Amino acid sequence: MVIHNVMEEVVKGIITDQLDHLHLSCKCERCQEDILALSLNKVTPRYIVNDSREPLVKAKYMIDRQEQANIVTVVAQAAALVSANKRCSNIQ
Amino acid sequence: MVIHNVMEEVVKGIITDQLDHLHLSCKCERCQEDILALSLNKVTPRYIVNDSREPLVKAKYMIDRQEQANIVTVVAQAAALVSANKRCSNIQ
Repeated sequence: MVIHNVMEEVVKGIITDQLDHLHLSCKCERCQEDILALSLNKVTPRYIVNDSREPLVKAKYMIDRQEQANIVTVVAQAAALVSANKRCSNIQ
Repeated sequence: MVIHNVMEEVVKGIITDQLDHLHLSCKCERCQEDILALSLNKVTPRYIVNDSREPLVKAKYMIDRQEQANIVTVVAQAAALVSANKRCSNIQ
């Protein structure tokens, strides 16, 4: 058994869903990973040992609209920061 | 490249170092993973994209004795909780 932060999938899902609304200067894999890492450093982690509980933890973030909105805000802030400070090779 | 929470190794290292001082009722892998997951939910995450930066982030926790002491406290609290509520198969 390996421990696992369920928020990794939750935040990754939100980045994918909102990709066209984040006004990114670059949508490459590296920039998306930078946004993901920055966002996860701001969001409270939810580590689990038993993967069978993952749907239960994820469901909380599907149902709780306020919590979802909070994560979208964190992702938008991270996206603005990454867009202004790109680390990828697509620097124009 | 895959994002990665450096605190996973930091907390895992502290659990291994302190294993004999945590007064655990069971030292099995499952109980150690439960302590790790519980501790990581309380400790601020430090996600990185570039693994070459990992030693830099880890060094902060080697040098900062106060930060190290804070993590040991979190681990001790998680260990007490897991010892009192074992989920493994070694229940006596």
